[in-house]
Amino acid sequence: MTGVRALFNPASIAMVGATDKSGWSVSTYVNLRRHGFTGPVHLINPRTGIVHGARAYRSLSDLPEPVDLVYVMVPTSVVLDVLREGARLGIRDYVVLTAGFGETGPEGRAREEELAAFCRANGLTVLGPNGNGYVNVARSVTPYGLLIPPPLPRGSVGIVLQSGALANSVLAFSQVRGIGLSLLTSMGNEAVVSVTDVIDYLVDDPATSVIALFLESVRRPAEFARVARRALAAGKPIVALKIGRSGLASRTARAHTGALVGDDAVIDAAFRQLGVIRVRSLEDLMITAGLLASSGPLPGSRLGVVTPSGGASEIIADRAEDEGLELPPFADETVARLKEIMPEFGSPANPLDVTGYVVVDRTLLSRALRIVAEDPGIDVVMLLSDLPRTEPADPEPVYRLYEDSTRVIAESPRPVVVVGNVLTDLGPFAQAIQERTGYPHVVGGIEHGIPAIGAAVRWSRARDRAPRPRAVPPAPVVRGPATGVWAEHRASALLADNGIPVVPSELATDEETAVAAAERFTYPVVLKAAAEGLGHKSDMGGVRLGLTSAEDVRRAHREIVTAMGDGLGTLVQPQREGGVELLAGVVRDPAWGLVLTVALGGVWVEVLRDTSSRLLPVDATDIRTALLELRGTKLLKGARGSEPADLNALTGVIAQVCDLAEGLGDTLESLEINPLLVRGAQIEALDALITWT
Amino acid sequence: MTGVRALFNPASIAMVGATDKSGWSVSTYVNLRRHGFTGPVHLINPRTGIVHGARAYRSLSDLPEPVDLVYVMVPTSVVLDVLREGARLGIRDYVVLTAGFGETGPEGRAREEELAAFCRANGLTVLGPNGNGYVNVARSVTPYGLLIPPPLPRGSVGIVLQSGALANSVLAFSQVRGIGLSLLTSMGNEAVVSVTDVIDYLVDDPATSVIALFLESVRRPAEFARVARRALAAGKPIVALKIGRSGLASRTARAHTGALVGDDAVIDAAFRQLGVIRVRSLEDLMITAGLLASSGPLPGSRLGVVTPSGGASEIIADRAEDEGLELPPFADETVARLKEIMPEFGSPANPLDVTGYVVVDRTLLSRALRIVAEDPGIDVVMLLSDLPRTEPADPEPVYRLYEDSTRVIAESPRPVVVVGNVLTDLGPFAQAIQERTGYPHVVGGIEHGIPAIGAAVRWSRARDRAPRPRAVPPAPVVRGPATGVWAEHRASALLADNGIPVVPSELATDEETAVAAAERFTYPVVLKAAAEGLGHKSDMGGVRLGLTSAEDVRRAHREIVTAMGDGLGTLVQPQREGGVELLAGVVRDPAWGLVLTVALGGVWVEVLRDTSSRLLPVDATDIRTALLELRGTKLLKGARGSEPADLNALTGVIAQVCDLAEGLGDTLESLEINPLLVRGAQIEALDALITWT
Repeated sequence: MTGVRALFNPASIAMVGATDKSGWSVSTYVNLRRHGFTGPVHLINPRTGIVHGARAYRSLSDLPEPVDLVYVMVPTSVVLDVLREGARLGIRDYVVLTAGFGETGPEGRAREEELAAFCRANGLTVLGPNGNGYVNVARSVTPYGLLIPPPLPRGSVGIVLQSGALANSVLAFSQVRGIGLSLLTSMGNEAVVSVTDVIDYLVDDPATSVIALFLESVRRPAEFARVARRALAAGKPIVALKIGRSGLASRTARAHTGALVGDDAVIDAAFRQLGVIRVRSLEDLMITAGLLASSGPLPGSRLGVVTPSGGASEIIADRAEDEGLELPPFADETVARLKEIMPEFGSPANPLDVTGYVVVDRTLLSRALRIVAEDPGIDVVMLLSDLPRTEPADPEPVYRLYEDSTRVIAESPRPVVVVGNVLTDLGPFAQAIQERTGYPHVVGGIEHGIPAIGAAVRWSRARDRAPRPRAVPPAPVVRGPATGVWAEHRASALLADNGIPVVPSELATDEETAVAAAERFTYPVVLKAAAEGLGHKSDMGGVRLGLTSAEDVRRAHREIVTAMGDGLGTLVQPQREGGVELLAGVVRDPAWGLVLTVALGGVWVEVLRDTSSRLLPVDATDIRTALLELRGTKLLKGARGSEPADLNALTGVIAQVCDLAEGLGDTLESLEINPLLVRGAQIEALDALITWT
Repeated sequence: MTGVRALFNPASIAMVGATDKSGWSVSTYVNLRRHGFTGPVHLINPRTGIVHGARAYRSLSDLPEPVDLVYVMVPTSVVLDVLREGARLGIRDYVVLTAGFGETGPEGRAREEELAAFCRANGLTVLGPNGNGYVNVARSVTPYGLLIPPPLPRGSVGIVLQSGALANSVLAFSQVRGIGLSLLTSMGNEAVVSVTDVIDYLVDDPATSVIALFLESVRRPAEFARVARRALAAGKPIVALKIGRSGLASRTARAHTGALVGDDAVIDAAFRQLGVIRVRSLEDLMITAGLLASSGPLPGSRLGVVTPSGGASEIIADRAEDEGLELPPFADETVARLKEIMPEFGSPANPLDVTGYVVVDRTLLSRALRIVAEDPGIDVVMLLSDLPRTEPADPEPVYRLYEDSTRVIAESPRPVVVVGNVLTDLGPFAQAIQERTGYPHVVGGIEHGIPAIGAAVRWSRARDRAPRPRAVPPAPVVRGPATGVWAEHRASALLADNGIPVVPSELATDEETAVAAAERFTYPVVLKAAAEGLGHKSDMGGVRLGLTSAEDVRRAHREIVTAMGDGLGTLVQPQREGGVELLAGVVRDPAWGLVLTVALGGVWVEVLRDTSSRLLPVDATDIRTALLELRGTKLLKGARGSEPADLNALTGVIAQVCDLAEGLGDTLESLEINPLLVRGAQIEALDALITWT
């Protein structure tokens, strides 16, 4: 972990490689000068004495005073020389714009490793290489290589980007939507300072209340999980646009950054568990962050909606349903009070359309808002209202109207989220109204606003969840060396040894012991090949079902032993009927560690790929929500005539499986129960497979 | 059908009920005066001689000259009087802003019916009541009750809105995104002029090339289907935001408009077949319409993408996959040519990131575009590029840059779609660049732009589909009066009589005939209760499977007859094994007429509600795409060990079912085959049910 407080808060800056010939150099200098950086900015150029109209020095060593931060724009081959010189002078913090490192291939990677090693050895902090720098909006420090048009939108959203080229879009969008930023960082290759270092800083940064990420890859998952948990505990939401959902994007991301893109489903699971809000677009990234920065946590999913338009309220109803938000009917008293103020032809329902009569009486919306905000059955009020686009000849009545609305919103006993109709810029008059009256942030349009509200509600719930009381799982009983593949007879024994319910099973080495076992179980029974390292016995004729007599058992044993060759014999088990078959597996992801996956058998997993995953460790709530998230979850509730599953019992068994997997230590590669049979409260592993690294 | 050409193209207008006290009156007058309407606008007010600073007349009869259009803002009770007076004077066309009609309840509905009847009897054309009017942008005729800030965005998108309050959002969005309009209509209650009347007009209107709809309900489905087909044939895409997807929205829509909201799945099916593009948001509505107005049809789904950003190209890859767009690898020659112009560290793949080097060489993007546009493996070029937000001190180099880009785009052998990064307004400088250089329309952001491209590609495909060669289905053979419910034995006989393959079946009235039938089929057989009007025989103990002996058959017959009471006996059928079970049903929708629904049996339909629907008439392509659209369609291709279905044979049988349903005439309520067993090319109805009205 690299501390970055000093990196982002220098009092003086040197630009090494400054030249009038480079657009980056011009932009960086203009940015620093016009966005309020008050400290000295020294220019270094070995060949000329004047750059950007100011005096230039030949090298860092020639500077009349020490500097806090060096912005490096020299050719690739001399970057390390600059760092060496800086290190000698005691300068700790650098931004390296120069490209030609890890992103270019093996040679570049070697160069980057050399640079990183030098920084580690000498305690240097470097942002980049191959990154544009950062914009510390809160402190007006803007060493950033692409021109930033004024004004800087000041606020509490901290942004970390793994793609520098998007920064301008993000800045422009923030400006026109009134989304204020604390810090924007363009990461570059993360040779020294990583995304997680910056998140760590933002969690502690008092100027930041929400963290927005654009991620091509999560390079250090364990570290990411740690900082995400810190952010959640600190009450600072993380909103992330993580690309590489499609196979193609994975390829593109590799080409672009040289980073390995993890499996997207695992990312989804990890983000969900860590309370990281995943979004699909830059618009959603910024709008969701902007909403959370203004609203803070939202107490629940029941919206009371106030609009001046029937059409819009119907769009809202559709989108709210998509996002799992409820629009409960208003309480009788609310309806009665609304009737008093609304025109006769209106109907006081949720979502509320106060009707076009607002054209006649402009206070109608605020008065309706006041009533809806007091409804006991809602958690959050959504007010659909656009700020005006054009300034009238006499703006004073407009200001007064918004002063009044601002007061009503401030007095609301419940959070009020103001959302505009469609996503357009807030014009200068709109921003002037907000500045003068204190009118709240306006979320950009229904289409992006409703998902943002949904995300904020889910994040608030994730935050409210108590920290998990985790008993350390007992050390598991393991018989024999943990290597290779453990097929059913050893895997099931391991499960049984560790308290996981397993179908009774006896190993039979000849026909007579098979029959004796079958008769102890009562017919029908099942015979399966017992062998080491056998993954797919049913494909190889190694399973016989529905054996109802001693003769059946003898023949089955004979056939299986013949088919399998050098097996250990057969496993004899009572045949189970009915119930629902699940798959429950724990697999080690190379990046994220142990991951639990649950699925229903049959078409659900084979055709629909209907699975749900969670990173370990999990608690009962995680497991239960994973099961409920399956598209086929209705089967567990008793659809198609099956007995409803006892979800507590099922969750308990899966938790035992997870405990076992964690207890088995680093050599466990995967532990899979398939099928796990569920009949009401009776849960039983019918087959299992373990692989060790 | 009401012709509306004169309504939208008046040379003179009277405003009846004009008054300084009404915001609507002020707005309408200002709109007419400042948006370029050059004809006379007469004001009518019975109580004062001066309104809006101009001379007012006491009544229509007092006017010095006849007018073409009357804009009515009088109280509800006197609206009809105004129409009567106008009719006497020979005035044909009206906009009625006044509310208090069908939207308010039974009394209002009666008033509206009276109004409509009067108009029909006297040949009057009325837009509304309870609507704000229209904005004919192409002709500068703007009788519209809410203030429209200038400038009017002129272009070829015609907009029809069933909610007036959204018009301002739509207009504002069009202005700031440079989406030009021909006509915007706010429909109101559609007492006389309907949405379909306006669409009909727009299909013929030379100023309109794309039609955008906001629909709360499709009030006249057959009429809608007719105009939608006309639009498709004319090459004018219809883009529609149809709300009421959620149950709640249905309720809201009813409260708001008094119209019945149809079943959403049927709407989806209808739109898909009619080539109507359905979108989810106002942003998508306008952006998709704006794209189509500028690009016209797009020849295919293979995109060549040129961007200045790795991050953005990865977002594009993710979103393209969501939308079924392909990003094929570039041809070798393209790669070779790109390598010549790109910096060494770039990689010439699709989507192409030309790298941040564009900052140094601003022509890089255009040069790359020229090369990609010549790649033989792509259909459409997507150029990611934002127009500048701020005007530099010397704008001339910028203008020259865009003149150059405009030339490259114009010379491209393939359509070029320009898309910006995020959805923000096009500022005045951006619009000035477009005006001066002819630079094309810029689609608003990746998030909405990629779905718009996807929709345009699908629409182009729908348009290219040949008109269906429809043989008139032969008149079906029907034995017995078509009333009530026809259970299996009659329904199956009807299918068989009309050439649809049905499992062999014999009616047995006693045990011995049942056994004789079974022995003709060979065991195992199935026995089912044969009765009139029986919907769910398996629920009532009326089905016995897997009967393997005469004794089994006798017992089954006895038990069924006892259980069912007064049935006709049993049906004996050979038992079929294996295969995939489908459901194929044709049901009469009260709004849209006969609708085909296909589904797979088991969990697919029971738990997943995995169905696919099409309006009749259908052709083989419709049926095939319906089957391929099912989530479980893999089963038809042979997943889970089943034999792949012969899709041609299956499509043929379903087409026969559709022909039969159409041939059965208006008394058919539903015809359902469940299951329809598919084993390779062998298709057989195992059970059927018909209901008559």
